[in-house]
Amino acid sequence: MASETIEAFIENNQFRFQDELFELLRIPSIGTDPAYVTDTRRAASWLHAKFKCIGLQTELIETCGQPLVFAQSPPVAGAPTVLIYGHYDVQPPDPLGEWTTPPFEPTIRDGNVYARGATDNKGQLLTHVFGVESYLQTKGKLPIQVKFLIEGEEESGGAGLKAFFRNEPLRAESAKEKLRADIAVISDCSQYASEKPAITHGLRGGVYFEVILTGPNRDLHSGYFGGSVSNPANALCSILGSIVDQGGRIQIPGFYDEVQELSNDEQVQLQKLDFSENQFRDEVGANELFGEKGYSTLQRRWCRPSFDIHGLTSGYQDAGAKTVLPALASAKFSFRLVPHQNPQKIKEAVVHWLEEKCPPGIQFEVNSSAGVAAFVLETNSKYMQAAAAAIQAGFGRRPVYIRSGGSIPVVSLFTNELQIDTLLLGWGQDDDNLHSPNEKFSLNDFQKGIKTSCHLLDELAVVFDVSQY
Amino acid sequence: MASETIEAFIENNQFRFQDELFELLRIPSIGTDPAYVTDTRRAASWLHAKFKCIGLQTELIETCGQPLVFAQSPPVAGAPTVLIYGHYDVQPPDPLGEWTTPPFEPTIRDGNVYARGATDNKGQLLTHVFGVESYLQTKGKLPIQVKFLIEGEEESGGAGLKAFFRNEPLRAESAKEKLRADIAVISDCSQYASEKPAITHGLRGGVYFEVILTGPNRDLHSGYFGGSVSNPANALCSILGSIVDQGGRIQIPGFYDEVQELSNDEQVQLQKLDFSENQFRDEVGANELFGEKGYSTLQRRWCRPSFDIHGLTSGYQDAGAKTVLPALASAKFSFRLVPHQNPQKIKEAVVHWLEEKCPPGIQFEVNSSAGVAAFVLETNSKYMQAAAAAIQAGFGRRPVYIRSGGSIPVVSLFTNELQIDTLLLGWGQDDDNLHSPNEKFSLNDFQKGIKTSCHLLDELAVVFDVSQY
Repeated sequence: MASETIEAFIENNQFRFQDELFELLRIPSIGTDPAYVTDTRRAASWLHAKFKCIGLQTELIETCGQPLVFAQSPPVAGAPTVLIYGHYDVQPPDPLGEWTTPPFEPTIRDGNVYARGATDNKGQLLTHVFGVESYLQTKGKLPIQVKFLIEGEEESGGAGLKAFFRNEPLRAESAKEKLRADIAVISDCSQYASEKPAITHGLRGGVYFEVILTGPNRDLHSGYFGGSVSNPANALCSILGSIVDQGGRIQIPGFYDEVQELSNDEQVQLQKLDFSENQFRDEVGANELFGEKGYSTLQRRWCRPSFDIHGLTSGYQDAGAKTVLPALASAKFSFRLVPHQNPQKIKEAVVHWLEEKCPPGIQFEVNSSAGVAAFVLETNSKYMQAAAAAIQAGFGRRPVYIRSGGSIPVVSLFTNELQIDTLLLGWGQDDDNLHSPNEKFSLNDFQKGIKTSCHLLDELAVVFDVSQY
Repeated sequence: MASETIEAFIENNQFRFQDELFELLRIPSIGTDPAYVTDTRRAASWLHAKFKCIGLQTELIETCGQPLVFAQSPPVAGAPTVLIYGHYDVQPPDPLGEWTTPPFEPTIRDGNVYARGATDNKGQLLTHVFGVESYLQTKGKLPIQVKFLIEGEEESGGAGLKAFFRNEPLRAESAKEKLRADIAVISDCSQYASEKPAITHGLRGGVYFEVILTGPNRDLHSGYFGGSVSNPANALCSILGSIVDQGGRIQIPGFYDEVQELSNDEQVQLQKLDFSENQFRDEVGANELFGEKGYSTLQRRWCRPSFDIHGLTSGYQDAGAKTVLPALASAKFSFRLVPHQNPQKIKEAVVHWLEEKCPPGIQFEVNSSAGVAAFVLETNSKYMQAAAAAIQAGFGRRPVYIRSGGSIPVVSLFTNELQIDTLLLGWGQDDDNLHSPNEKFSLNDFQKGIKTSCHLLDELAVVFDVSQY
């Protein structure tokens, strides 16, 4: 086996890699649902055993929530350390009835594996695990030090990881020492399109809210009381419904103060991507696209802030009519933020908005996430060049540079706590249905991702050498 | 027995009347729950047997749903016919745990009987049954013709009664012929307060809507798509949240066109009721009352139109955060209408509002009820005078004239189909917990109601005579 090339090893082991991916996908590690706490931990144990098996030093780090899976190869003198991050928890699979095959019974159709967590993030994170395994099996040792950090609370706020960074519970070796690295790598996003691998050099930030409005002390009959007592459902609609105007612009005072327009260079880069608005419209199935006036769809998705309501709950929701004036109404919503917007300042402005708009007779309770700032990396940095070369080798094509409208909170954690940048190398596709029924991941890209991960180890070693002299 | 006065007969039979009321209350005639279909029919049979027993001609009229119980005394030449309506079905008793004593085991505490259906409507409807029985037992025959119509689907939409009016199934004698009368009487509402009997001379109308908004063809990740695709939950809040302005006024064009201000007389009548806004506020448990500017709470409840959202449903509603841009959002809502507002015109205006406010990329589907017009009876009409005199005799006090903010669909059915007015003579109290746990009805008012019902037969005969000359 020592004389086998890495590429050949990966080809020869592709079905075993798939089998192992399927094993992990069968574990319903729905971290956001308390009923699946044990299953979520089972996914951590699976990874822990896997790291041990491929020869890495590994441990389960207990936190206030789900454990972190940590693994590392030995340091390599004069070579950099890369920190590879992923997560083993998945989104809830609801609505279950819309899945063609059950979410935790991985099934292959048209070269894709369908399962909750296929692309987000089990499939993508395993490319690096199998990449390191392939490198070790064929060459015996890695050219750089690799550290893995796999968490189980990515979909639910990452409290355990944050506590780990605060050294809770107290440990001999601090999180910062243990995770010390020169660059981070995360594969938890998408290519630009099929056969168009990409490096994501920017992310939107965000801040998430839950608000509960209460009015009367019980549900009232809307005939006897309607019009004389404030209705929390009416109030909720009025407060949230006035946040965005008919031109798609957010009306909260000061919201856009720090938002900058794109440079000409960035605008040209976006235009080069040859994005089809019609194709996008057809794919999302809306009869028309709509967003902030004066901006293209790609700008709206990647470079402009946005406001979305994620959930509304109030009153009678079953079949038939019930004339109730509900005692309570609640909503979940969030703002996506762009570079220079400060999540804390946005939170204060939103709370102020709630205070201003809340009608007499209604009281509100609001909870919000800590918030995440947006992230942008220069496309000409040495790490970006290394990643581009690895993708060229693994996928057979130069990557394009894109941004993503999503947030990866851990990226700002790495920026703030470890003072390192993050390479976002996504192997997924935009139509992978992450967070939706029928999530999928291309098995072809799964294999190319494994190859690219191997090449990245070499490329990072080279780039680092050059940068030293 | 022939020499016994009616009043004495009622006194002497009070415990038997209570026993018979308890018999009917023990039947769990939960018409809205398919599990209680047989029990509901058992209540109809009980009434059918009772009418036969007191000497009325009676029949069970089969419908598409629960049977109607019909009964009548012989016509009286030169005297009017009164149609007394009631219902034998009751609301579901949930939540069961909040009942002090079981809902279908009637229990006396502090002079009240506690049971589901005590006030709504078994206790109130039986006052008229026992009133007629008492009259017949003491005087041998009635001074006017009485018809009873007792339905079993009042709490579930009254489909059977509506079908009966459409002559489905086809019968030799049409509903209109069978129910022909000069005036209707319903005791299915409340007094103004304890020791303050009232005639309800007005009801609000209403029209009920369900709207479903759809956007993308599936739930999307709000990070990747937010800001570029219209969000149905955002749109729902924006459309419904702008219906009422900050002054509590409905913004739909033309909505108030037919709404008339109260006359000075009516305003004075309202003021005389000595309504306590503070007590009302404490009772509903809101920290402040709120409604249309320029109107008192009583005006807002009884005489002004209103808009209430009854239910909101969209996206992720369980614990924790989910960053979904939902494919769908829905709401149930209604408008309460006042005299002269046309439900059909309001429906058209609301649909037009939805069309105008629906943002690009969102489609809507709306369903609405047929709608019910508001109802107001002049307080100086001859029937009102008769009812006032009967209440004076039965309760020992002049009634006050009140309105109710609710709707009683059967009142507009009688107006439209039989061309007759309805006297709403309620013996209940506002704190009777109808539709809530621990429903109750005062046994004292039960007896006064029986007396009043007897007096009403005489008063209607007198009034009618006078009006003939």
